[in-house]
Parts: sequence; structure tokens; C-alpha cells
Amino acid sequence: MQFHLNGFQPGDPEAVFEKKDFSVSQKDRALPQTVDVLIIGCGPAGLTLAAQLSKFSDIKTVIVDQKPDRLILGQADGVACRTMEMFEAFGFSEKVLKEGYWVNETAFWKPDDKDPNKIIRNSKIQDTEDGLSEFPHMVLNQARVHDFYLDLMKKSPTNLEPHYSRKLLSVKINNSENQNEKHPVTAFFEHSDNNKIKETVSARYIIGCDGARSVVRKSLKLSFKGDSANQGWGVMDVLAITNFPDVRLKAIIHSANQGNLLIIPREGGYLIRLYIELEKLNANERIAHKNVTSDHLIAAAKRILHPYTIEIKEIVWWSLYEIGQRLCDKFDNVPVDNEDTHIPNGFIVGDACHTHSPQAGQGMNVSMRDSFNLGWKLASVIQNKCSPNILRTYSSERRTVAKELIDFDRKFAKMFSAKPKTANSNQKDNVDPKEFQKYFEKHSGFTAGTAIQYYPSIISSNSKHQHLALGLKVGMRFHSAPVIRVADVKPMELGHTIKADGRWRFFIFANSDKPENPISATNALIDFLRDNKNSPIVKFTKPYEDIDSIFDVRVIFQQSHREINLEKINPFLLPLKGKLGLRDYEKIFCIGRKNGEDIFKMREISKETGCLVVVRPDQHVANILPLKAFNEISEFFDKFMTKR
Amino acid sequence: MQFHLNGFQPGDPEAVFEKKDFSVSQKDRALPQTVDVLIIGCGPAGLTLAAQLSKFSDIKTVIVDQKPDRLILGQADGVACRTMEMFEAFGFSEKVLKEGYWVNETAFWKPDDKDPNKIIRNSKIQDTEDGLSEFPHMVLNQARVHDFYLDLMKKSPTNLEPHYSRKLLSVKINNSENQNEKHPVTAFFEHSDNNKIKETVSARYIIGCDGARSVVRKSLKLSFKGDSANQGWGVMDVLAITNFPDVRLKAIIHSANQGNLLIIPREGGYLIRLYIELEKLNANERIAHKNVTSDHLIAAAKRILHPYTIEIKEIVWWSLYEIGQRLCDKFDNVPVDNEDTHIPNGFIVGDACHTHSPQAGQGMNVSMRDSFNLGWKLASVIQNKCSPNILRTYSSERRTVAKELIDFDRKFAKMFSAKPKTANSNQKDNVDPKEFQKYFEKHSGFTAGTAIQYYPSIISSNSKHQHLALGLKVGMRFHSAPVIRVADVKPMELGHTIKADGRWRFFIFANSDKPENPISATNALIDFLRDNKNSPIVKFTKPYEDIDSIFDVRVIFQQSHREINLEKINPFLLPLKGKLGLRDYEKIFCIGRKNGEDIFKMREISKETGCLVVVRPDQHVANILPLKAFNEISEFFDKFMTKR
Repeated sequence: MQFHLNGFQPGDPEAVFEKKDFSVSQKDRALPQTVDVLIIGCGPAGLTLAAQLSKFSDIKTVIVDQKPDRLILGQADGVACRTMEMFEAFGFSEKVLKEGYWVNETAFWKPDDKDPNKIIRNSKIQDTEDGLSEFPHMVLNQARVHDFYLDLMKKSPTNLEPHYSRKLLSVKINNSENQNEKHPVTAFFEHSDNNKIKETVSARYIIGCDGARSVVRKSLKLSFKGDSANQGWGVMDVLAITNFPDVRLKAIIHSANQGNLLIIPREGGYLIRLYIELEKLNANERIAHKNVTSDHLIAAAKRILHPYTIEIKEIVWWSLYEIGQRLCDKFDNVPVDNEDTHIPNGFIVGDACHTHSPQAGQGMNVSMRDSFNLGWKLASVIQNKCSPNILRTYSSERRTVAKELIDFDRKFAKMFSAKPKTANSNQKDNVDPKEFQKYFEKHSGFTAGTAIQYYPSIISSNSKHQHLALGLKVGMRFHSAPVIRVADVKPMELGHTIKADGRWRFFIFANSDKPENPISATNALIDFLRDNKNSPIVKFTKPYEDIDSIFDVRVIFQQSHREINLEKINPFLLPLKGKLGLRDYEKIFCIGRKNGEDIFKMREISKETGCLVVVRPDQHVANILPLKAFNEISEFFDKFMTKR
Repeated sequence: MQFHLNGFQPGDPEAVFEKKDFSVSQKDRALPQTVDVLIIGCGPAGLTLAAQLSKFSDIKTVIVDQKPDRLILGQADGVACRTMEMFEAFGFSEKVLKEGYWVNETAFWKPDDKDPNKIIRNSKIQDTEDGLSEFPHMVLNQARVHDFYLDLMKKSPTNLEPHYSRKLLSVKINNSENQNEKHPVTAFFEHSDNNKIKETVSARYIIGCDGARSVVRKSLKLSFKGDSANQGWGVMDVLAITNFPDVRLKAIIHSANQGNLLIIPREGGYLIRLYIELEKLNANERIAHKNVTSDHLIAAAKRILHPYTIEIKEIVWWSLYEIGQRLCDKFDNVPVDNEDTHIPNGFIVGDACHTHSPQAGQGMNVSMRDSFNLGWKLASVIQNKCSPNILRTYSSERRTVAKELIDFDRKFAKMFSAKPKTANSNQKDNVDPKEFQKYFEKHSGFTAGTAIQYYPSIISSNSKHQHLALGLKVGMRFHSAPVIRVADVKPMELGHTIKADGRWRFFIFANSDKPENPISATNALIDFLRDNKNSPIVKFTKPYEDIDSIFDVRVIFQQSHREINLEKINPFLLPLKGKLGLRDYEKIFCIGRKNGEDIFKMREISKETGCLVVVRPDQHVANILPLKAFNEISEFFDKFMTKR
């Protein structure tokens, strides 16, 4: 954490902007008439977006929800490794690590061949393969994830807090030929409490994070296509006593004739979540209409777990749902035919544009990462740092992810709901537990969120120079690795320097020359970035801004820290910043000294040539380039960055 | 973290007791007339003690300070490894890790032999040796440590908050023959603001955490002996620009003729602390009377750093002090002659009973650990769990530590203030920089706080069975090591199960038998603890209390986690707890599966025989015993535990 740059401030460094006393209750204040960004919905997608935008004091954001207050319990709970990396960028990963449940192993149970009325353990596997991420797979109440976001929004420079009890009635977007209109979006609200007050907000952009029944989606006339598997499920959070031995592991249980059950242990050591398969539904039949009660769910769980017993001591929350996969053709309001001429100003995110089964733990994760993709783009365009063209990439990048997810999920959910293949039951539709486990293992990178790769676009290059860093894939998230920060010899994760602050990162992996060699390829690149009129830093950073306010340059040397002499380092790597002109010592890194942790080896980076890795504000690798590819660097950014 | 044991509660699990709205401002409320424990002083010692006692809803604690509000800046900043272990027990180590500066290396500078007017680097050393602790050596503003304590006190079951603006005038203790008097301590206060309101509080115990000029110490008539080195020093926290290359390392600088300087980098990446040697004082001369200004300090720092330059951009805080070592003969109010017959009810802690130089970074750390030693003892006696005899051990244990510290510090401070021995300057009193570095390295375990060892007493055994676990020394703090928690396969530090909750820990390191073997020595010990009338658990735990409320039994198996079958584990290790009777799955551990982390090897525990390690509530090892030593277990606790 860096703070005190503009002078010492006492107290919590994460709360320097926090207003301690609000004279007006935030809940009761009216909606502003005009905003830059209007976010509909305070779920994980809406809050991730709001948290991202709240960091910019020059962007006016409003987030509304029709509920009267923050979420208290229930709903999603899985936090994938990749999501933890994003939480680290937002600055609260350590809270989730402390409070949440760590998913370390998954147990698979099946009918006992000798007595199919009983279940027996088929196998246990490590949940996340070694080295996939520096973070574990976690489970934590969605309400707590909301709390962490709400807390950081309140402490942000904009002190952003949601407006609750606001029901969106409709949205009108003036997409006439006159695209110069500053606030083309008009949204109509009604208070969802008794007084039914009406409000109207004009916005530059509207983002529908309003779930599967999205009003924004309907207003934008985006069709939501898909189907239902006609399979009813129940979910419940309980405090219970059981003799089932794997109750503190993620456990996937296929019984012979009683249905299937997924156990997710939860935070705190006692709570568990049960996903319980209910009966197959007829076409157009809704589970909500079948009078299923929590007693039914408990009875089903007991039957599936036989010969083990479970006694429910407290039901914390329960719900029913049907598995269905639905997807929008586009995640923004520009029809495919107009993509070359029109810039979107209405977007949909999360469940509003893709729905799938909860059992794979993807909904909350993919939704938050939709927003992480969109947030920096909106901010950069509003701040005139980037061309509005980059807004087109949101739908193309995230719809591809959603499509892959739905394809995976359809098969996963089907296998999950199928009867297990056993010695006594070997129908065509039955699934061999081993096959299910294999499918589960094969897609672990996908479910962890670390395998997501964006295709080449205006902001993501092709893989021409991929060979320079085979372990850091262009289009995929920057895969962190341990390094030493030279000035204070701190062992840390390089990826944790990428905060959710809208900045681009240049990670210069130095070649084998000595750091002090003034004519090394490394120093030549640094000199180019510092001085050349074609350098994106020179071109797109204003003279009064800190030198790292748009592009954050960090160098990783391959020497050990005691071989690096700060007195002879290129001074660009020790920049003077802030209103006091203080020196920033946190730009220079080198390989770790212990446990053989060598980021060059781990990420397959040539020590002879080094390379430049360009990372987007959402942590995805935008480009990998040779150290001398000055022209390519200029050309890449000229395509979408703007001189303000 | 474990929570939800007595039913689900939404929101921050660390704040379930927090009162959101106080109708009366806590600052203005009157002192209660009668309390169990009265703590004088809201420094690190007072707050550690208050935080410990705040966890017990049946103990009435008051903490006062004469200042009008919490500390904002200045004062101590070093947090030793051992202190971080204690912070983990209090539940906020991760906050310090995130916010603080990590001391990884120390640089030593000396006069250049070729030109003694210039300083050059002599060497760099790793600050803390590998394996000393699972935590690094940290630096963080004392005010933030206070904040973390104040926060947890407020969220504790007692919602404890300090009473500020209370000046202690005097203390009277009625130590007549009638030791049955319930509240023998009377303390007289005056409001330190203008209205000068007088208040009187009766208490069972009073603890003076009121610093070097302790009123409690004076009231208890304890003499404070020692001397001053007549050496003036200045300390300042600054934001500065320098070309000195080691400004983000702890740097110890001896100049030839300009004095000595210690640089401590601080949290946030920019702030630094400078300890600057000033002139030698004459006998009875006070630095405070010499009109030294911050400009003098800056000028001295500039001279010492030559040929490097430093430009101060902001002075955050500065102060002057003299090095002196003072120590009380006793840290409680029972004279040596009465020790066998009287129980102390007045104690002094921290700077009130020992002072030394700040440069070694020991003051805050030793003071907080004084309180950690005293806190659980007071609580156990007030709750009738232990005999009041254990209160005698506070002074004997902590005075020994303080004496060792002062002996170390006297030499350290002298060497620090001495002129360096160089080719040109080789007087008798000069110190060879190599010798200084050697002394520094040799005492690293001592300054880290991990080498502290308590001598045998009623609550700390002799070392008769030390050979069973050579890496866990009786009398020293339990040295944590990595393990796997079997039920959820979580990799974790075993020592982090020891929370500041006043409980004793039985760590049963199992012998080589299979866990399910019912007649193994391990299971025989567990059966004894569960059932035998001589078992301390049977004897001292009330039937209505959770089975682990006094003694927390944890077993560490030497098999890997997949070899351990929870269905065949001794059910005592899966206890039913709380008002819902939920099962606790967090008592069973095994050796780590990766990186060759084997706690038996790391702590030199015999795999053939195993052993029982008894750990006190303050994390110190009280006893190491063979698994079959049932009588010795009984006898150890019979000496000081009481049947309530």
C-alpha cells in the first residue's frame, strides 16, 4: 500500500476520503438529475462496476436498487481464484481469505455397487491445481462481498453510496443521428416503498445489472434466448449435525435413485450449503408452483445421504430454482449491423445477459468480471483518455466468455443431474462418476476463471510475440508470480501491483545486461518511453500529471537484489511524484532469492532478450513485445488512446 | 475464523457484539464506582491489557487516559515478529501486514577509510533469520496499533471504550490482614479538562500502564532505579527526498565525526523516521533544556549523511529524548519479603517499570507482551479458574525479561552512540562496525522477541521432557509451523489456533500408530482427558460449558490427510458445542503435503513416541510431556487450577 504521497494524513489510509458525518441520510436523498453513469442493480455486477467508478472523482456515478437496503443473506457464495485476484486489485482479498471458507478438495460420492441404496466415496481430488493462481478458491456469503464493495465505495474519493428503494420503470435512449447529445439516456423511476415518488435521471451511459428479469434489457429490446432443462432444484444454507465425513469438503453426491446433492461448506466452520436435486419438471411447469417446502428439501437430502444421517438445527435461508441457460446476442444497445458506425451507451451485465446453473459457482464470478471488463473502459472514455471505440469490445469480449460458460454449463448441469452409471444401472443417459470427475478436472482453469482469453481487438494484440513469454498469454489475465521489490527487499506478488485504478501497466522484463548498463535494450526502452515524442507516455500524459498516472512502468531485473545499485539505476524508475515531489521507490523488482522462485522461469520469459508485457487496467495481457519494438508500442496505443 | 456456532448472524463476524448506536457519548460518561480491573493509560501496554480483558463479558474493566482522545501520530513504530504472533492471537495481524512496512534487510554504513568525511556502505544483512517466525519484522505507526486494539475492544462482548481526560491523582490500596475485602483498591481522579471534576473508583486490581512517570508506580512506592547515558537524541518522522540509496531499508549510519543516524522506513512507501544523535550531555543536564529545534535535527542528519543529500518536505512529528535505562525491583505491590503470604493487586506494566533506548525498537513490544503475560492471569483469577497465586508470576517472569532487555540495551545503545573504529580513528572507546553488526545479528532472536524464555514456576514446568520436542522449548513461545487441517484440508499455521481467549491448549502430537487404532497411546491419552476423574478437563470444566472452554485439545497426526478417516476418529476430537450442539471439525491436523513441511521434523518431535505440548493462554509452552504421563498432567494443573 502506498499513501502519504501528498503529505501525512493520520488514521486509516484506506479511509482518508471518508466523510464521518453525513448531515442528510443517504438513503433519503433524491436522485441527481444528470449523471455520467447510471447503474441499475446492487448485486455483485452492479457493485463491482460502482466500486471501479467510485475511484474517479471526476466521474459522476449513481447506483440504484429496488430493494430497501443492502443484502443480508443468501444467494451466491463461490469466489473463484480469478475473482480473488480481482478482489486484490480492489484491496480486500485479505478480508475474504480471513473470513471465507477455502475450497481445497472436492469429494465425489456414488452408489455403492454392493448396495446401491447406500452412497460411498468414489474419490477425492485437489480442487485447484497447483500454480493456477496465487489465491485459493473461496466460498463466502454474497452479502459479505457486497459489504466489502460498499465499504470501499463509501471510503472512495466520491463517497459513493447506493440509492435504495428505486424501481426502474423504463429507459429511453435518444440514439438519433445527433450523437453529440451529452446525456442521451433517460431513465424513469418510481420509489418502491409506499409513497411511489417518481424521479427521472439523464445519463451518458446506463448499465443494466438488474438480473435475469432485467428492465434495462427489455428497454434496450435485447432478446434473451435459451432454454430450461426442466429440472427443479432446491438450495439451502443450514446449521446441521451429520455423520457424513466429508461435510467440510465440497462434496458432489450421486445417489442411485434418490437424486443428487452438492454440499458446499461455508465460512465460520459450521454453516453448510446444500444444493438438492428435485423432480424433473414437465414442459412449462414451474418449480415455484409445486408447493415444495423446506421440509421437502430436508427429506430429499436425507434420502440422498443414506446411510449417513443429517439433522438440521437451523435453516438460515432457502430457495428453489430451475436450471436454464439463456444468453443475449449482444450485451450493448448497438445492433450488429451498426457496429461500425455507432458507439453503445446502454450495456447489460451479469444475469441480465447470461444465466446458467448455480452449482458450478460461476454466476457471481462471471458477472463481477463482466463489470471489471467494462468499468475501466467507461472511465477511460468519460475521462477522454481513450476513444469511445473501446466500448464496443465489452460485448464482444464478454459475450464470448458467457457463450463458453453456457456451453460448459449445459453439459456440466446435465451430467450433474444424470443418474450415475453403476454395475446395476447402466442406461444410455447415465453418467459414469469417473467421467463426471474428469470433466470437472478438465475445466478447472475455466471454472477458476483463469483460462479466460480475449480475442485480438483494438485493445488486445495478436500473439505475434507470444514466444517471448510463453507463460503469460496475450488476452489472458496477467498470471502473477513472486518477485522481490528491490528498494525495500520485500517479497511480493508482481501481479498485486495491478490495482483497480484504471492505469495501464508496462512490465519490462529486463534482458541479461547489467541494470546500470546505459545502452542496454532495457534502458533504451526506458529512454524511449521517457523522452521520445512517439512514446505513449510522452504523448498521452499531461505535463502536470504524475508520470505514472496513465502508464505505470515497472521493471523486473534478473539479477538478485544485492547486485542492483539504486544509485546507478535509470532515474525514470525512481520518479518524483505528488505535490511534494516525493520519490516513488516501488517500480523496481528482481527475481526472488528463496525457494527457487524465478519469475522468468515460471513464466517462460527469455532471460537473453527479456520482453515488454503490456497489461490492461483489468489485468489482462494486452500485448507482449520485444524490448526494441518502439514502433509497435506507439502504434498499439495510437489506435485507441486520445490526446486530451 | 469460527462463527455461527450459536446460530447464524448476518454481517461482519468480528462485529456481532458491536452496538451501532450509543445513546450517550462514551467520552462523557462517568467512571463506574466499582470495577474488577482498573487500567491506567491508553498506550500499547494499557490497550493490550484492555483488549484481552474486553473479551470476557463477566469481567468489568475500565481503562482511562489523561489525554483527551486517541493517539494520532508519533511515538513507537517497530513491531517485532513475536508481537505479530500476538496480534494474530488478537485477530488483526493481517491488517498490520497489509498496512505496515516490512523490515527485510538492515544496511550498515561507516566512514569511508579513504575519505572519512564521507560515509560508505559497510554491509547489508537479512533483518530476521529464516524460520525465526512465520511473521516478518514490521514497522507501523503506534497510533494505528492503538486503532486496531480500540476497534476490537469496541466490537468485543463488553464494548469496552476508554475514558479519556482522566488524570489519576493517587491510589490507595487497603492491604490489611483482611484479604477478603472485595475491592481493596481506591483510585482518585480529576478530569484533565477545565472542569476538574473529581471521581473515585474502587477496584479489585489496578494496573499502571501510565508510562515512565507512572503515578501508579509512585503510589505503590516502587523505586525506579537506573541511570542516564547523558546522550541526547532527536527523532523525527518526515517526508523527504534523498539520494541516499538505502532510504527504504533500515539503515544504521556511523559517521566519523558528525554523530550517528538510524533510518527506519515507514508505512505507505514515502514516510521515514530518523533517529539522530545529538551532543553528549553533562551530568544532570536535560536535552529538553537545550533549545534544540527541528532545524538542528535536520542539520545534523544532513551532516551525518554526507556525501548524500536529504531535503525535508514535511515534518510530521519530532521529539527529543535521552537514553537511560531504568528498572523497578518488583512489578507488583507485594514486597519480596511478603511474597509467600500476600497476593499482589497492584501491577505496573511497560514504561512504568522499565525504560530503555528507543533505537532497538523494544519499548512498545516488550510493554505489550508484559500485558499479554498479565491479562490472562488476571482474567483466570477473576473468573475463579486459577488460584490467585499465579498473579505472583507476572513480576517474576516479566522482570527477568526486562532485566535482560536492559542489559542488552545498555550495550547496544553504547555501541550505537560510539564513534566508529576506522583506519584513522582507533581510540579505545571506538567500536568496529563489524563488531556492532555481529552484536546486532547475535541478538536478533532477542530483539524479535522469540528468544524470551520463562523460568520454571507454578505455571511453567522444568525441562524434564524437553527431549520429546527439541524445537519447542518449555518456557518459550509456541513456535508455530505449517499443518493441514484434516476436515477441510486447509493449509495453515498450527500456532494460529492459539487465540487470545484465555484458554489453555493441549497439542497432542500423535505417535506413529494409525489414528483409528483405539489402543494407541494417542487415543489412550484422549480417553484419559475425556473420562478420567483426574483429567484436568473433567475436573475443571463445568458440565454446562463447552468441552473446550477451558482446555482446547488439538491433535496433530503424522499421516497425510487422505490416510485419516474421520469416521474412525476418536469422537472427542469432533465435539458437539454451543446451544445448537453443532460439531466442531477444527481439532484435527496432520502434516503438510507440500514443500516437505513436516511439523514433526521442523520442531524435532519424535515420530515414534509423539508427545503432549501444553501451551498457556499467552502462547508460551508450559509443559512437554510423554503421551502416557497422566499423573504428571493432573499434578501440573492441580497446582494452580481451581474447581469453581
